[in-house]
Amino acid sequence: MLYGSIEAGGTKFVCAIGNEKLEIIERVSFPTTTPAETMPLVIDFFNQYKEDLSAIGIGSFGPIDIHPNSPTYGYITSTPKLAWQNYNFLGAMKEAFAIPMAWTTDVNAAAYGEYSFGNGKGLSSVVYYTIGTGVGAGALQNGEFIQGFSHPEMGHMLVVPHPKDDFKGSCPFHGNCLEGMAAGPAVEKRNGRKGQDIPQDDPFWEIEAEYIAQCAYNTTLMFSPEVIIFGGGVMKQRHMVDKVHAAFKRLMKDYVATPELEKYIVTPALEDNAGTLGCLALAEKAYQDAK
Amino acid sequence: MLYGSIEAGGTKFVCAIGNEKLEIIERVSFPTTTPAETMPLVIDFFNQYKEDLSAIGIGSFGPIDIHPNSPTYGYITSTPKLAWQNYNFLGAMKEAFAIPMAWTTDVNAAAYGEYSFGNGKGLSSVVYYTIGTGVGAGALQNGEFIQGFSHPEMGHMLVVPHPKDDFKGSCPFHGNCLEGMAAGPAVEKRNGRKGQDIPQDDPFWEIEAEYIAQCAYNTTLMFSPEVIIFGGGVMKQRHMVDKVHAAFKRLMKDYVATPELEKYIVTPALEDNAGTLGCLALAEKAYQDAK
Repeated sequence: MLYGSIEAGGTKFVCAIGNEKLEIIERVSFPTTTPAETMPLVIDFFNQYKEDLSAIGIGSFGPIDIHPNSPTYGYITSTPKLAWQNYNFLGAMKEAFAIPMAWTTDVNAAAYGEYSFGNGKGLSSVVYYTIGTGVGAGALQNGEFIQGFSHPEMGHMLVVPHPKDDFKGSCPFHGNCLEGMAAGPAVEKRNGRKGQDIPQDDPFWEIEAEYIAQCAYNTTLMFSPEVIIFGGGVMKQRHMVDKVHAAFKRLMKDYVATPELEKYIVTPALEDNAGTLGCLALAEKAYQDAK
Repeated sequence: MLYGSIEAGGTKFVCAIGNEKLEIIERVSFPTTTPAETMPLVIDFFNQYKEDLSAIGIGSFGPIDIHPNSPTYGYITSTPKLAWQNYNFLGAMKEAFAIPMAWTTDVNAAAYGEYSFGNGKGLSSVVYYTIGTGVGAGALQNGEFIQGFSHPEMGHMLVVPHPKDDFKGSCPFHGNCLEGMAAGPAVEKRNGRKGQDIPQDDPFWEIEAEYIAQCAYNTTLMFSPEVIIFGGGVMKQRHMVDKVHAAFKRLMKDYVATPELEKYIVTPALEDNAGTLGCLALAEKAYQDAK
């Protein structure tokens, strides 16, 4: 018995096969160009395993339609990537493979990976952020995704400008929301170089940490989660975690007694495997639910 | 068969009895002084109905311990009201009445009331705020409260100061958080008079609406709920809802396609009965769960 995983990102699709223990046994990636080009590669890949494939978990870039009763359930909806707008992603997969499938956002899948195997394992309430070319997030309570009329878009929450930061923000919608102030493009635009080229003791990192701490602060007050996990390119700067802890303490002023910060605000245990492992775990769940 | 309700607020306890249809058949209130004074009044009230009383729902001011496995489950914990600090509220009730009890925050109880009978009825994801002497909130997804290491404290989320507002905020912890900028004391301190005495066309209300809209904006991005309900004294200014809708539209810039604003950002259908009706519904649930 095998499970399939599709991590459909804005620049590449990572497809993988996992065994019954949800160990990754093969993984490939394809560039995200157009559905007409990308999807046949995806389908060909899984066709090799068709006989043993029991379910597929899909974590897609969005926005996506997550409502099973909606006529456009399984579609990528209003994405700026024109070729994928209103594309029936889940429908195309279901046409090719008559097996159970899980359908959620890419970042929900990564959150589910950390919840199943990583720093959210065994916890009832987990929030996962990725801070990369954008800021995305997924939240789980008792194994269910937090969602309502749609999936959350926490990356665009409001932040209070740092007094030493005169950057106007790079979000095309909101300017200086969290994504506009703290995602990779904002780091690069502000500093004229990418994050990995900015020295650890550059005062800019205190500003960056302040925005991430504001995010952790709001997340604490909104969800009281048992853990907040920050992944993505920006958090690969490992010195950031301590800076975020310090800024979070300043903001919270002991108002709420969170779990110990070293275990409460953390980076992903699974690193870049969170998405694929999350999709495999979601595939297994879809298979169990369909039985 | 009767159900009991205790809405334990910081200034008064409202105790009520509901029938099988969860209709309120009696209601009394006692000042919140000390446990030694207030609790005997509460217990005497319910003792009148002891024979027919099947369960009690308690919504308490907080912070409270909501973890059934914790040694201080059922306690009011670090409240600034010293006489109630570390008070075993649920324990005192259980000693007096050997029946099922529900235990949550006062604002969760009000959220549950709107979810059961009001503007959240039939919806899967509901967030309820009360903007009064403080700002409190409760959120529900599929009938379960959003919570983790503790109950949320959304009223203290960060807000971005309005450019025409030089008020420094009145929150003793965070200064200019949402509660510090938008709760009743902030309204009064800024204007030298209470909200009900400020005319509807005073430009201050645009500032107040901006903060409430920021709260609705962040809530939308964090939960994607199906409805956001704003109750409490400040929202009794009925002109506020339109102002909040307008400010929310300006902030959101159509980034997320929410439900129609008139049905999405609303005031409570149950008005001041939300808490009592929520406690009765929680009592019924506790009774069913115990069967």
